[in-house]
Amino acid sequence: MGKFVCFGEIMARLNPLGYLRVVQAEQLEISYAGGEANVAVSLANYGKDASFVTKLPDNDLTKSALRKLRGYGVDVSDVVLGGERMGIYFVEKGASQRASKVIYDRKYSSISMAKPEDFDWDKIFDGAEWFHFTGITPALSDEAAEVCLEACKKAKGKGVKISCDLNYRNKLWSSEKAGQVMAGLMEYVDVAIGNEEDCEKVFGIKSEGTNVTGGSLSKEGYTVVAETLSKKFNIPTVAITLRSSLSASDNKWAGMLYVDGKSYFSKEYLVHIVDRVGGGDSFGGGLIYALSSGYEPQKAIEFAVAASCLKHSIEHDFNEVTIDEVTKLMDGDGSGRVQR
Amino acid sequence: MGKFVCFGEIMARLNPLGYLRVVQAEQLEISYAGGEANVAVSLANYGKDASFVTKLPDNDLTKSALRKLRGYGVDVSDVVLGGERMGIYFVEKGASQRASKVIYDRKYSSISMAKPEDFDWDKIFDGAEWFHFTGITPALSDEAAEVCLEACKKAKGKGVKISCDLNYRNKLWSSEKAGQVMAGLMEYVDVAIGNEEDCEKVFGIKSEGTNVTGGSLSKEGYTVVAETLSKKFNIPTVAITLRSSLSASDNKWAGMLYVDGKSYFSKEYLVHIVDRVGGGDSFGGGLIYALSSGYEPQKAIEFAVAASCLKHSIEHDFNEVTIDEVTKLMDGDGSGRVQR
Amino acid sequence: MGKFVCFGEIMARLNPLGYLRVVQAEQLEISYAGGEANVAVSLANYGKDASFVTKLPDNDLTKSALRKLRGYGVDVSDVVLGGERMGIYFVEKGASQRASKVIYDRKYSSISMAKPEDFDWDKIFDGAEWFHFTGITPALSDEAAEVCLEACKKAKGKGVKISCDLNYRNKLWSSEKAGQVMAGLMEYVDVAIGNEEDCEKVFGIKSEGTNVTGGSLSKEGYTVVAETLSKKFNIPTVAITLRSSLSASDNKWAGMLYVDGKSYFSKEYLVHIVDRVGGGDSFGGGLIYALSSGYEPQKAIEFAVAASCLKHSIEHDFNEVTIDEVTKLMDGDGSGRVQR
Amino acid sequence: MGKFVCFGEIMARLNPLGYLRVVQAEQLEISYAGGEANVAVSLANYGKDASFVTKLPDNDLTKSALRKLRGYGVDVSDVVLGGERMGIYFVEKGASQRASKVIYDRKYSSISMAKPEDFDWDKIFDGAEWFHFTGITPALSDEAAEVCLEACKKAKGKGVKISCDLNYRNKLWSSEKAGQVMAGLMEYVDVAIGNEEDCEKVFGIKSEGTNVTGGSLSKEGYTVVAETLSKKFNIPTVAITLRSSLSASDNKWAGMLYVDGKSYFSKEYLVHIVDRVGGGDSFGGGLIYALSSGYEPQKAIEFAVAASCLKHSIEHDFNEVTIDEVTKLMDGDGSGRVQR
Amino acid sequence: MGKFVCFGEIMARLNPLGYLRVVQAEQLEISYAGGEANVAVSLANYGKDASFVTKLPDNDLTKSALRKLRGYGVDVSDVVLGGERMGIYFVEKGASQRASKVIYDRKYSSISMAKPEDFDWDKIFDGAEWFHFTGITPALSDEAAEVCLEACKKAKGKGVKISCDLNYRNKLWSSEKAGQVMAGLMEYVDVAIGNEEDCEKVFGIKSEGTNVTGGSLSKEGYTVVAETLSKKFNIPTVAITLRSSLSASDNKWAGMLYVDGKSYFSKEYLVHIVDRVGGGDSFGGGLIYALSSGYEPQKAIEFAVAASCLKHSIEHDFNEVTIDEVTKLMDGDGSGRVQR
Amino acid sequence: MGKFVCFGEIMARLNPLGYLRVVQAEQLEISYAGGEANVAVSLANYGKDASFVTKLPDNDLTKSALRKLRGYGVDVSDVVLGGERMGIYFVEKGASQRASKVIYDRKYSSISMAKPEDFDWDKIFDGAEWFHFTGITPALSDEAAEVCLEACKKAKGKGVKISCDLNYRNKLWSSEKAGQVMAGLMEYVDVAIGNEEDCEKVFGIKSEGTNVTGGSLSKEGYTVVAETLSKKFNIPTVAITLRSSLSASDNKWAGMLYVDGKSYFSKEYLVHIVDRVGGGDSFGGGLIYALSSGYEPQKAIEFAVAASCLKHSIEHDFNEVTIDEVTKLMDGDGSGRVQR
Repeated sequence: MGKFVCFGEIMARLNPLGYLRVVQAEQLEISYAGGEANVAVSLANYGKDASFVTKLPDNDLTKSALRKLRGYGVDVSDVVLGGERMGIYFVEKGASQRASKVIYDRKYSSISMAKPEDFDWDKIFDGAEWFHFTGITPALSDEAAEVCLEACKKAKGKGVKISCDLNYRNKLWSSEKAGQVMAGLMEYVDVAIGNEEDCEKVFGIKSEGTNVTGGSLSKEGYTVVAETLSKKFNIPTVAITLRSSLSASDNKWAGMLYVDGKSYFSKEYLVHIVDRVGGGDSFGGGLIYALSSGYEPQKAIEFAVAASCLKHSIEHDFNEVTIDEVTKLMDGDGSGRVQR
Repeated sequence: MGKFVCFGEIMARLNPLGYLRVVQAEQLEISYAGGEANVAVSLANYGKDASFVTKLPDNDLTKSALRKLRGYGVDVSDVVLGGERMGIYFVEKGASQRASKVIYDRKYSSISMAKPEDFDWDKIFDGAEWFHFTGITPALSDEAAEVCLEACKKAKGKGVKISCDLNYRNKLWSSEKAGQVMAGLMEYVDVAIGNEEDCEKVFGIKSEGTNVTGGSLSKEGYTVVAETLSKKFNIPTVAITLRSSLSASDNKWAGMLYVDGKSYFSKEYLVHIVDRVGGGDSFGGGLIYALSSGYEPQKAIEFAVAASCLKHSIEHDFNEVTIDEVTKLMDGDGSGRVQR
Repeated sequence: MGKFVCFGEIMARLNPLGYLRVVQAEQLEISYAGGEANVAVSLANYGKDASFVTKLPDNDLTKSALRKLRGYGVDVSDVVLGGERMGIYFVEKGASQRASKVIYDRKYSSISMAKPEDFDWDKIFDGAEWFHFTGITPALSDEAAEVCLEACKKAKGKGVKISCDLNYRNKLWSSEKAGQVMAGLMEYVDVAIGNEEDCEKVFGIKSEGTNVTGGSLSKEGYTVVAETLSKKFNIPTVAITLRSSLSASDNKWAGMLYVDGKSYFSKEYLVHIVDRVGGGDSFGGGLIYALSSGYEPQKAIEFAVAASCLKHSIEHDFNEVTIDEVTKLMDGDGSGRVQR
Repeated sequence: MGKFVCFGEIMARLNPLGYLRVVQAEQLEISYAGGEANVAVSLANYGKDASFVTKLPDNDLTKSALRKLRGYGVDVSDVVLGGERMGIYFVEKGASQRASKVIYDRKYSSISMAKPEDFDWDKIFDGAEWFHFTGITPALSDEAAEVCLEACKKAKGKGVKISCDLNYRNKLWSSEKAGQVMAGLMEYVDVAIGNEEDCEKVFGIKSEGTNVTGGSLSKEGYTVVAETLSKKFNIPTVAITLRSSLSASDNKWAGMLYVDGKSYFSKEYLVHIVDRVGGGDSFGGGLIYALSSGYEPQKAIEFAVAASCLKHSIEHDFNEVTIDEVTKLMDGDGSGRVQR
Repeated sequence: MGKFVCFGEIMARLNPLGYLRVVQAEQLEISYAGGEANVAVSLANYGKDASFVTKLPDNDLTKSALRKLRGYGVDVSDVVLGGERMGIYFVEKGASQRASKVIYDRKYSSISMAKPEDFDWDKIFDGAEWFHFTGITPALSDEAAEVCLEACKKAKGKGVKISCDLNYRNKLWSSEKAGQVMAGLMEYVDVAIGNEEDCEKVFGIKSEGTNVTGGSLSKEGYTVVAETLSKKFNIPTVAITLRSSLSASDNKWAGMLYVDGKSYFSKEYLVHIVDRVGGGDSFGGGLIYALSSGYEPQKAIEFAVAASCLKHSIEHDFNEVTIDEVTKLMDGDGSGRVQR
Repeated sequence: MGKFVCFGEIMARLNPLGYLRVVQAEQLEISYAGGEANVAVSLANYGKDASFVTKLPDNDLTKSALRKLRGYGVDVSDVVLGGERMGIYFVEKGASQRASKVIYDRKYSSISMAKPEDFDWDKIFDGAEWFHFTGITPALSDEAAEVCLEACKKAKGKGVKISCDLNYRNKLWSSEKAGQVMAGLMEYVDVAIGNEEDCEKVFGIKSEGTNVTGGSLSKEGYTVVAETLSKKFNIPTVAITLRSSLSASDNKWAGMLYVDGKSYFSKEYLVHIVDRVGGGDSFGGGLIYALSSGYEPQKAIEFAVAASCLKHSIEHDFNEVTIDEVTKLMDGDGSGRVQR
């Protein structure tokens, strides 16, 4: 089994207790999270040899973040120390009609100001089987985008499989910039992951007949989106998460996997939300685990969706679930009966 | 823009953490709230020049309460210091079939024992545009009722608009007493606010075909209630909140506004409740803001209901929302999707 | 009114805050609970003269547990001190599709290693009206089973009514062992309580046409189960709880009582769960209260189910409700409207 | 062994966490305490058959307070329910030069408005060995003073020993009033307890050569104070606590017992304070235990002082210590070495 | 009475609970503080008309910070909104030999990147009596230094008194840079405040015969330092705080005031520390209050030192004390006896 | 650099918040600790390649404990999974004259019931430089003692250095049993660590002229103790910790190292205690680090004592300090001045 390299930003996540808003908070929970770090933790939880690569300042927050990752069994020996600050984000948990809100204070973070020479990709990819990044990393800065490109090239050259979660963030860059930069990266990608919004915002690929806010989903529409993305960049595998937000408390959650011209839809779950942040990443982590473990497409998308379904019941970004728990759910037991 | 004067009681609110009952509690959250103070905070949050008037003892609880109000931008310079105690109420949060429970320890509070000469209404209403009080204040004591009446007269004389939330509290007075005292006050009122129970308990105005516990609501019935109230006291504007309690965790919530003989019904929301106390006050705050800002009746009732719908997702009595958030909801986005 | 003797194990219950998993926990709430202790507390809360009998080590945890029980008015003067440890169990609260999980560390507890000579049943049953135990106690060890048998014999001899909640725990013993031991005890039992799983796992009595996970319930099937159990052991009264797990957050909850060949079904409640552990015991407590207070069968089962319905909204195992609250719910008011 | 009846007020004690001031608090710990209730708990902790008598309103705070007392084994069956409210006091913990601060909201409490006919002293003193009250109770109201007097007379008549802690509270009454009322009560008292301030403020008995703030203590001075008090009211036993406040964090603590014309001084402890409130009551509890258990005077005062020395290391008012712990300290081991 | 304008940075202060280190923290308390904001709060607490001027980003942290300041009565109407982030600092509380540790994440804060044209000093100083800033502000950036200089000039021109706390921060600038920039500002200053380290690090003025770590203080040495500073920049009033760190838990604390060629030394306090951060600012706030209120020099320095002595017993940066409490301490009562 | 193998028990440590006693606790902090695990964490914190070996049950507590250790960089790949339970201990923090109290619930733990064949010492010591265990492990059971002996033999055979902290626990075994078993182990030991009590209780080696409770320490006495131990078992290096308990809040703390017939005494620190548990282990960790890093004896003992001095200011068992912090203290800066 090879190494699963995840590259991106890890931030300090600060959230008020319970349903308090940031403006009301006198206490904040601190944890450490980020799109790619969340995937690395999922993979380590499932027994994969996960490694997380980033650049972080040399201070106590970093010490704490690395301690957490290391605790999960994520290899952090390729993390580069330096730069000025760790990105921070504040999360307030929504409920009912009030949306959850994320406030970013990530500018000037070490990784966003990292230089290509900070990372020795030859060494990093030594023994690697998989490389995962998301659209957030190239959005951080031109240098970060350059680092991503270099990493993709190196990975490709070494036969390392590459997955990318589009993860469009409109506060980091415009659709135009995103489309342009991501296009250059997608040609290296083997597995693309996105939601309905990402594809439209980044590449203008729109699913006809879908209404996100309204909650209606069209199977054909999503197949067309995946197919278009797959063909445009010659990506063999495309996965799309299908979320219908009924409210900040209740969502419908499903996914589809498009492989070799065929689309596989998962079961749809009605989720009562404990903490929704990191939901997409838990899907990515589940999918990469399943695909790299040789699951059939239908089983792979069921695993990814069941894993991320469970994540919505877990506090903080990391998905604290076991393969057994995911499997039990995808096999049909979502009754939530007490396990004694 | 003139001052919005809110007059009434502010109390220390003590509630156990989460869903613990008072009898189980080892810790209590302390905040400060009251029907009219909650409205003042809502108005200040929406940018109005709100002022809160009351009488409070000269101690550290008062210091803390005033600090909170002042923090929201509420003017507390007309608060009178004196008397013996601040009222206290204990709230335990219900869930499912278990109702929330409020235990009052408000007797002998400074405001309930205040005298008319404590307040210089001429000075208080100087530059005022609006005066708001609720049926709780005159229920506190005969003196408090007298103060309300004097305030109403002064306000009327100065052309200040007057709103009153009926807010019937059966632990404070009987229906008979309430009906008698409130009748004397209603003749000064421009905007009356109530729920289906208030109108019946205070003035015997009953909506036919409505079953509060059962959850059925009749549009015609509510129109009749509003019309009757409007005609009886010559009140141009009457608003009624329409709550259907499915359980302590889930409510339906809507409102209607009766203006110039016509009734406007808002959308109905299905609310998953975080904290229900202060829900009615957040409606009042939203309505007064909307009406005083020149909103059309339909838009005004939609704003008030959307504002109070959001309140149900906010901990403690004060409604920590912005005009933008309310507007977004009333314009249709109640999907609760994460705001990044 | 005589004494209600409950005999079994009380453990330290340790649970993370909110929805955190044990593996994430840095803090645990500690309370003290156990099937029979929970029933004793319910009975004391309803005004019965409850007594709890067990064996506990002589340490500060025991001191704390007894203080809690004594606080509720439960007589603990027959608790035997000695042995090596108090059992412990860890509970993590599930949500949505993630099940609640109970991790037991109860082996070698004082009660599980108690000897028959530890208890002076003559003295314990002096003035007793009722004896309650559950299938957990005989499952702890052969000695514990022997103690149960001796207690049943003594109780019977003194005309004390005996109730038993089957409460099958597959981590403590096998179906075979359970069936064999429980059969020897059931002949003394006047009131048997169980859920659909208990009857099948312990005595192989299966309800046709029921699908627990799927949530479908068959009235006839349950009647057959109760009847079979009643006839097999000559038990006049059999009660069955009917839970449909929609998810870890939402359950349907009802019960049936089989008396003198006739079955009485309660209303069914849709419960939004705060804490589900102890739900069955609160049913038992409600039922014993109702039966011993002379309630008619239909009213008795309604009381028991309403009581346990409310328990699902209460944190920790003990059912912190009053007769008034239960009665109000069984009489139809489950709207959860704020009690001021 | 007879009953030890303690009569007085129990209040809800609300304190911010740690060293936060009330004006900063968002959370308060709630416990229940009062001078005589604290003594009752101490006596129950030492194995005495303690009973607490008061009047409390019929609400959930009372339910919780009684549950706590009952948990300690204090008999609360003579508590009278009725009246309007439970007294409340807020405590903020001082440190260094900043004094601890107690804010009372106890006016109009049920006990302060109780009538003599509320208490059936014949029944209460049935089987009683000791009656304890403090100078706080008669200070609450004229009726409360009258109840105290009646209780003293009844106790005397039944041969019940009477102890009284002077406990002068200048916010409740003036020195003049106190002196006058207390004089009428002291003639029934067998054991008087006070500190240097009480004797001066209530009876004008002043210790020459003592400077409380400065921390100098004069043995002769205290003997004179005790002797004067003893002779004035014909009280055989007088105990005085000797506190030197170095700061809110560090105190010196000792005591003296004057019996039959002879004074016994305890060791002096340097205490690093965790929670100082209830310190005097823990002295009273220790003294009553020791005297009623036949301790020699020197041993009795050492026990009382060691008990109250330990109390300063315990959070909240109740003294959570065992006879063993007190004895170990009075026998010389105050090294605080870990007990494994 | 005129306005007291304080200009500088306010940051989010994040600290673990109790004595946990940052690397151990799962929760952080959030408050808002900064050298000049702390002074503004002190002045407002003492009844002065304080105003705080800064630049902050337009987000929820700012909303919360301003709400806090406004709550204390600090005028924040001249705060400029804009820029990218609010500075953050992490504080871990030391104990015994382990020092408290402050980790700054303040780079790129809005105020550090502010431009001179952001502030309209004419308007800000309208009606002003006093202007206070510290050496931290010019250290943030060249632009910030420029803004300070402009403010000083404007203040001087309008006859506003100027105070400056040297507050040298070696992580923000070098001694050389500090000396050079501060020299340009000191010529406008009327009241200079510093500790023994500031004077040496910024201006190379060293007190002979002092050993900070060792804890020995020389009165003559400090007089020379003050005199030198006073003469060098023609500053009439110089105050120096005298801290001897015995450990992170215990400090000696005193101060001296040099006015018109004469030095006044305060009493020295032995402080048991609750929270030491903000101690210097509380001295500044006390001093400015005393000087502007016409206190004699000896009384002024006693007030400033007593105020800051008390601050060491208060959690978080703001000094939550009243004039009465300060006066009581400076008048000699530091015994910390309970205030009932 | 070789591996540092630490072998022993790790337990769940449960402690109430702050200074609450176990009997008062409603919440407990959970961490994971044990004598040898604490040393492993210290060594990893100082950059050594530490490995911890034990046997633990396969459950979520173990998962959490291993995650913590792994987070610190401790290798847990040789931990054996199996057995029935993880040991638990409850700690209540003492203060002033009230001692800290440890309540063990460690019986039947997996490690105490482990068999020699559970551990493959050849593999474990592959690449090892150091082996550390304490007297607690052989005290757990005869099998555990046997495992220790086997490990010592294997280590010796492979030239691995062996250290042993005597750590006598009278609740686990008698002095006789301890003396007998430990004697068999000491002959393999290169570095023996103990306190004054261990040497006396285990081997009857008593320091004349020492009075632990009284706090007097005799340098000559300790030298004799070390010399006797060294000669008796032919142990080249002996270290003794010297604690004088002034109270549970304040201790004096020092150490001595006896190497090649010469004794080296460290500075003595006056420690104000935050958490004392793990203090001895932090000494062991510091000493092993210093000795294995080639420190001279005087410097080694200073490092060990400074490290453990700092530990007393750290919450929980693990010593969260850096080499820099220890070095700074041993070099003389214990002033606790804020590090900005």
